[in-house]
Amino acid sequence: MSHSTVTQTFRAIDVIRKKRDGVELSRAEIEGLVSAYTKGEIPDYQVSAWLMAVVLKGMTRPETAALTDAMLHSGEVLDLSSLPARKVDKHSTGGVGDKTSLVLAPLAAAAGVAVPMISGRGLGHTGGTLDKLEAIPGFNVNLPVAEFRRVLEICGCAMIGQTAEIAPADRKLYALRDVTGTVESPYLICASIMSKKLAEGIDGLVLDVKTGSGAFMKSEKEAAFLAELMVETGERMGKQMVALITDMDQPLGNMIGNALEVVEVVEVLRGGGPEDLRELCLELAGWMLHLGGVSKTVADGKQQSAKLISSGKALERFRQMVELQGGDARVIDDPKLLPQSRHTMRVTSARNGYVRSIQCEQVGTACVILGGGRERKEDSVDPAVGIVLHKKVGDRVAAGEPIATVYYNSEAKAARARELIEANCEITESTPATKRPLIHRVIAKAVEKN
Amino acid sequence: MSHSTVTQTFRAIDVIRKKRDGVELSRAEIEGLVSAYTKGEIPDYQVSAWLMAVVLKGMTRPETAALTDAMLHSGEVLDLSSLPARKVDKHSTGGVGDKTSLVLAPLAAAAGVAVPMISGRGLGHTGGTLDKLEAIPGFNVNLPVAEFRRVLEICGCAMIGQTAEIAPADRKLYALRDVTGTVESPYLICASIMSKKLAEGIDGLVLDVKTGSGAFMKSEKEAAFLAELMVETGERMGKQMVALITDMDQPLGNMIGNALEVVEVVEVLRGGGPEDLRELCLELAGWMLHLGGVSKTVADGKQQSAKLISSGKALERFRQMVELQGGDARVIDDPKLLPQSRHTMRVTSARNGYVRSIQCEQVGTACVILGGGRERKEDSVDPAVGIVLHKKVGDRVAAGEPIATVYYNSEAKAARARELIEANCEITESTPATKRPLIHRVIAKAVEKN
Repeated sequence: MSHSTVTQTFRAIDVIRKKRDGVELSRAEIEGLVSAYTKGEIPDYQVSAWLMAVVLKGMTRPETAALTDAMLHSGEVLDLSSLPARKVDKHSTGGVGDKTSLVLAPLAAAAGVAVPMISGRGLGHTGGTLDKLEAIPGFNVNLPVAEFRRVLEICGCAMIGQTAEIAPADRKLYALRDVTGTVESPYLICASIMSKKLAEGIDGLVLDVKTGSGAFMKSEKEAAFLAELMVETGERMGKQMVALITDMDQPLGNMIGNALEVVEVVEVLRGGGPEDLRELCLELAGWMLHLGGVSKTVADGKQQSAKLISSGKALERFRQMVELQGGDARVIDDPKLLPQSRHTMRVTSARNGYVRSIQCEQVGTACVILGGGRERKEDSVDPAVGIVLHKKVGDRVAAGEPIATVYYNSEAKAARARELIEANCEITESTPATKRPLIHRVIAKAVEKN
Repeated sequence: MSHSTVTQTFRAIDVIRKKRDGVELSRAEIEGLVSAYTKGEIPDYQVSAWLMAVVLKGMTRPETAALTDAMLHSGEVLDLSSLPARKVDKHSTGGVGDKTSLVLAPLAAAAGVAVPMISGRGLGHTGGTLDKLEAIPGFNVNLPVAEFRRVLEICGCAMIGQTAEIAPADRKLYALRDVTGTVESPYLICASIMSKKLAEGIDGLVLDVKTGSGAFMKSEKEAAFLAELMVETGERMGKQMVALITDMDQPLGNMIGNALEVVEVVEVLRGGGPEDLRELCLELAGWMLHLGGVSKTVADGKQQSAKLISSGKALERFRQMVELQGGDARVIDDPKLLPQSRHTMRVTSARNGYVRSIQCEQVGTACVILGGGRERKEDSVDPAVGIVLHKKVGDRVAAGEPIATVYYNSEAKAARARELIEANCEITESTPATKRPLIHRVIAKAVEKN
């Protein structure tokens, strides 16, 4: 323990005690704490005590906004005001098979919305946009800011990873939360997500908050609480906001794994692909176009998006972005140029019946086991491996019929993945259960709470 | 942040999460945490998050006992089983003018109870036993354990400060609690006090839990909660326990300040001294004798104690202890040999009336301002300064009559102390308020709770 606490002018201990006692913190107190911590003037042990008090005592909406703002301004905020188009991004809280970002960025750009997208990598059972993009040979997600801006100016969208300059307070706080049991707080999750997204210099944000067995928020109630919190926080900071609570009780689309998901993205951009994925992409695109000011209504935005797909313009925009970011765009026409696994293995049904449920987190974990995801931040991923689902919830299946194909490079890992898939695809003889809706709820205006 | 958390075998994060979620921790988990932290295997930032979770979620009685036990066994536990007498100590939660320890140790020893007393220093507005003892020229509170045992064997009592070997986990945890807003938890306070006291190798413990304006526990309810917690924790560990909730709404006795309090101790041991101090000493002594097995009842213990005072045996035991610990015992007969302040100043009443209240914490602070206490652990104390109260709550006072005398070495400090005393002794013209009892409650057997 250092003795710096004795001489520091900012009294961290007072802020800790106030939060502990349930007293609302002022904007200045929150800014002081975040700023001093980022500069290394407050030790980890004081901040972790404060974080635990936040987890257990919560935060008011003004506190949450102040925390988001302080984290946002701990680093660089992109100024994209020179771009004439409105800047809109989409953020998902993470799921299995969720490749919508790769469809949405070029699609919204083709409609005239600028999409400056800064994404993350997969962690735990969920995939990450950067890992999927890097399955395309040559694709560079580490563009310097000037190059990011250039790609954005040329094709209306660009997709990169977080830079060291963006929200350094979040990076430092997240590392501490990870080892102190203080990750699970909607207020801290909100500030972490929103500070990074608002650093992109956007005018609007479409949030895709997942709920179900493959989501971090298992219940719709938790998902809605976080969604409302983020919508209100964004609105307090002058942004156009919407949150869609969408289903993650089974994987989205049929393909899970980095290269496989790129294949499915191209299918959707060609007007094909699985129905749930196509539908969610159109819904989210409709909102992006609406917030971006290029469509009067969401329905009109969806219609415009559908046309941009059928005309091939969205796919062309994807091709252009891949090329501008150094990727081999030939993969679009020849998926064989994407990394290929050495082997495949079928997982078949033991009985006749209907797929009643697919435990989504477990299927995501099967992909991680194959090497397609990472347990720890330091791990590297194998872009070629993954799972293709041939059946989704509600589908009829005959005994011996394949329910999934495993793409793998290691027999041992494939065996474990297969077991996990078999154990987590429930086949019943009864009539299929009522399907869960794809879109559970839309939160377009924050409900005043807390 | 070190990366030791990744490789450590004991998963601190799991224990933090459980406490955060309100799940009861096992004895092994608590022992693991305390042991790993004491060895430096868990970083401060994880322990501070856990401490905040304890502050906000509380602990069950078995958890509190397990924490106490783990802290106790983080260091040396004295084995005094070779002494034939039963070992009983007294511990006070701290107050203003509370010098009972100096009376009780020789008094109980004279009755045949062994008193191995390990005490602390004053902090904040409260005084500390070690500071008072050190007002006696030459008195050594830093005896090695072997010497402590020798003094105890010869005269039945010995009074020292905490050694590095006793409850090192408490020292480390307390330093962390102090800077992370996690001091204020009855469970943590209980474990801290009890682990140190039980390390003395005692058979019984009399707790003096203070309540009122000069106590850390302002309300009787809080004091009783802590008292019951400590009594139950001690009983779970096989000790004879009693807690007295006693009044600290005004200073105890008339003298505040280290050398002045030694003078008042000698007065009590001579059969004089102020009534409240004498009465509390007899009450606590009665319990010490009872727990120590030398009196059948507490009343009988009080009576024996009164006799040991009137016979001069208690004072002789005090003299013997002072000599054995290197102190100048001539101070007992000639108080002028104690450190003397250069100046004195009277604080007089501005009106005729009755003393309605004496804000005890403020009067304690006045003594600290004079130099008689310490704001920070590093501060040194001036043994000569202090305050003598000439009036207590309920006393009649005439305009111009002195209510206190300030003993000081600095004019500026004396002026501030005088102001504080004047502002905090309330004189009203109405008839005196009903006096608060000296003993509010006795908790002899823990009430099953939580």
